[in-house]
Amino acid sequence: MKRIAIQGEPGSFHDIAAHEHFAGEQIQLICCATFEEVFENIRLDPTVIGLVAIENTIAGSLLHNYELLRESNATVVGEHKLHIKHSVCCLPDDDWDTLQEIHSHPVALAQCRRFLGEHPDLKAVEAEDTAGAAEYIARHKMHGWAAICSSHAAQTYGMKVLQEDIHDNKHNFTRFLVVSDTRKADFLRPLEHSNKSSIVFSLPHEEGSLSKVLTIMSFYDINLTKIQSLPIIGREWEYLFYVDVTYDNLTRYRQSIDAITPLVKNIKILGEYEASK
Amino acid sequence: MKRIAIQGEPGSFHDIAAHEHFAGEQIQLICCATFEEVFENIRLDPTVIGLVAIENTIAGSLLHNYELLRESNATVVGEHKLHIKHSVCCLPDDDWDTLQEIHSHPVALAQCRRFLGEHPDLKAVEAEDTAGAAEYIARHKMHGWAAICSSHAAQTYGMKVLQEDIHDNKHNFTRFLVVSDTRKADFLRPLEHSNKSSIVFSLPHEEGSLSKVLTIMSFYDINLTKIQSLPIIGREWEYLFYVDVTYDNLTRYRQSIDAITPLVKNIKILGEYEASK
Repeated sequence: MKRIAIQGEPGSFHDIAAHEHFAGEQIQLICCATFEEVFENIRLDPTVIGLVAIENTIAGSLLHNYELLRESNATVVGEHKLHIKHSVCCLPDDDWDTLQEIHSHPVALAQCRRFLGEHPDLKAVEAEDTAGAAEYIARHKMHGWAAICSSHAAQTYGMKVLQEDIHDNKHNFTRFLVVSDTRKADFLRPLEHSNKSSIVFSLPHEEGSLSKVLTIMSFYDINLTKIQSLPIIGREWEYLFYVDVTYDNLTRYRQSIDAITPLVKNIKILGEYEASK
Repeated sequence: MKRIAIQGEPGSFHDIAAHEHFAGEQIQLICCATFEEVFENIRLDPTVIGLVAIENTIAGSLLHNYELLRESNATVVGEHKLHIKHSVCCLPDDDWDTLQEIHSHPVALAQCRRFLGEHPDLKAVEAEDTAGAAEYIARHKMHGWAAICSSHAAQTYGMKVLQEDIHDNKHNFTRFLVVSDTRKADFLRPLEHSNKSSIVFSLPHEEGSLSKVLTIMSFYDINLTKIQSLPIIGREWEYLFYVDVTYDNLTRYRQSIDAITPLVKNIKILGEYEASK
């Protein structure tokens, strides 16, 4: 049985992603209040696997999780892309005409603007969590309250789904990283099947410093799938770059890392893993 | 008198940034509920200037605002960097021993984790806005409630500041863009003083496509200060790149744009402006 630490409650998108990613395997969830707690669980027990959201096609990157990953001893062993679909649900004996409030996480509320605009009578209220809003309404029998969450969360808490797919943009995907203690990583991902890597390094604020690095990588047939610069807090003239690359040949990729290492500072391989389909 | 559209209430960080940026000038704020409304105000009245947050050193980029800017007819005419400082405030006759709840925007709560950890007796409650939380407490005389907001917001609403600088990370900066209708832009920024530009373009998902573009820019002595890739929603194999560059020579910079244009798709100059000090 694998034990998977997630941020969020049963029924959350992290829960759904964990069950999809480890489909066919027995897993036990460790539900954490924060992402810090997820990494702390891995640190205290190296057999625990973490699953953490890292970016959303609409909301962008979760920079704080990149930081936690960079500072941890954990490594990325896989990724999972989840299609985010929001539903509106309520207590079984409530209905459209009895609802006054609609509760959800601010990001979920923002992703359902059109729906909320069509229902101006429903007061939108921010909650800590999508599944948590459904759980609260179910537990406290909050008549007149609806939640925006996944249909899975609605089922988990015995809520009635009033309408599915209420999100504005149908191409709403969240990418999750599967992370593990570095010493346990080899049991979880066959390195010879890896074709993707997440890297972080810093560069001086100099003309062309990034173009040199990317040019070398392109000479080694390494493909960039994501790049994000971040100013380094407290060091105004240095930048941190989070880069995802894909490759066909592990050896060639490793050689490219050797080739760029002298030109960058503080390079860290956050993980080498198999890209999700 | 300049009319500045911001998202947020009087006392918000947008308000502070607007007054700092236009120091010494008479300005009138147009307080909007959403960033969409800010751009809508500019569209309906080209004499309105907008001021919108675009990135924070801790929370990252506001991708949605990049989208709004890209889709609008507005152009960037300036930028402003604001040091974000959080204070805790309450009604004048409340004090530490009478407080039960502390209200603020989720991002502000997240930026004051250490403070909240040291005050486990204070229940943290999410609000729409930092200044809005202070305004609500003042207007409704909510005894026992504190707000996390700027000291300026506390003053604006006649609240008592209990403690300043309660944020974890002292290097907390937000960068704002000053935006204007394109036809009015030349009145607002002397183009010959511009030394920074924000650009967006798309590239095919091909080995080396980005490195070619950056190499050309470095040949023209153009300095990259920010890069962020985004998958294009609905077009899985194409990426959008938001890039900020600085330059000493406007002509050289313009030549570099001409040089990269044949290699990229859908290039749009979001604005050429003077970098903030």
